[in-house]
Amino acid sequence: MLGRVNHIAIAVPDLKAAVASYRDRLGARVSPAESLPEHGVTVVFVELPNTKVELLEPLGETSPIAAFLQKNPAGGMHHICYEVADILQARDQLLAAGARVLGTGEPKIGAHGKPVLFLHPKDFFGTLIELEQV
Amino acid sequence: MLGRVNHIAIAVPDLKAAVASYRDRLGARVSPAESLPEHGVTVVFVELPNTKVELLEPLGETSPIAAFLQKNPAGGMHHICYEVADILQARDQLLAAGARVLGTGEPKIGAHGKPVLFLHPKDFFGTLIELEQV
Repeated sequence: MLGRVNHIAIAVPDLKAAVASYRDRLGARVSPAESLPEHGVTVVFVELPNTKVELLEPLGETSPIAAFLQKNPAGGMHHICYEVADILQARDQLLAAGARVLGTGEPKIGAHGKPVLFLHPKDFFGTLIELEQV
Repeated sequence: MLGRVNHIAIAVPDLKAAVASYRDRLGARVSPAESLPEHGVTVVFVELPNTKVELLEPLGETSPIAAFLQKNPAGGMHHICYEVADILQARDQLLAAGARVLGTGEPKIGAHGKPVLFLHPKDFFGTLIELEQV
């Protein structure tokens, strides 16, 4: 079921500082910042040769990463996004295997304009997993 | 400086259960478990098309992931490993930019038989970064 690692998401309290760190200290290529009010985040991509790291800063008062940053004020690894060919089939297979899908269980359109679902971290050893249909 | 994401490491309290979850629920290919007493971990690789996820279980009484699992008993994302072409050059560039390298600052031979260094998570927004010379 799992395809490529689409991205690894890291929540940060200060996106400007994080961009400077990845670009200037680590010598990585970083995309311009993009504000996504409907997703409650401002995002940049650190572009690596085989995948990308997504740096996320909260945007607005109901950001989905606000609670994470309250618990981890310095920031931290937030989730891993895997590509799947058919998100409904993946969901049904996971539900049949006893895994929990967050929210309503229906895919939403994610930050990249594609259908996504999140799986409960308690079912995957503390790791929040995003599935994205590509 | 940063090359490919070599792996994303996830610490788990129960490797057998984690393997079953990634293989049977997520339908991923998982390598056989390998015990690395000199690194204090037992490891498997979840093989994705573009990178791999390393599942780590503590081995022995001085495992470097024991403290992490005490703080995160269910498990969690532990570090990201990036490939670099020249680890000494990378280290010197990072030190000159004010970043901290863990331990003695000299590369050690990592779990894959290659020279590795770890960077202080406080300098990278709560993310533990491993550099591996390939």
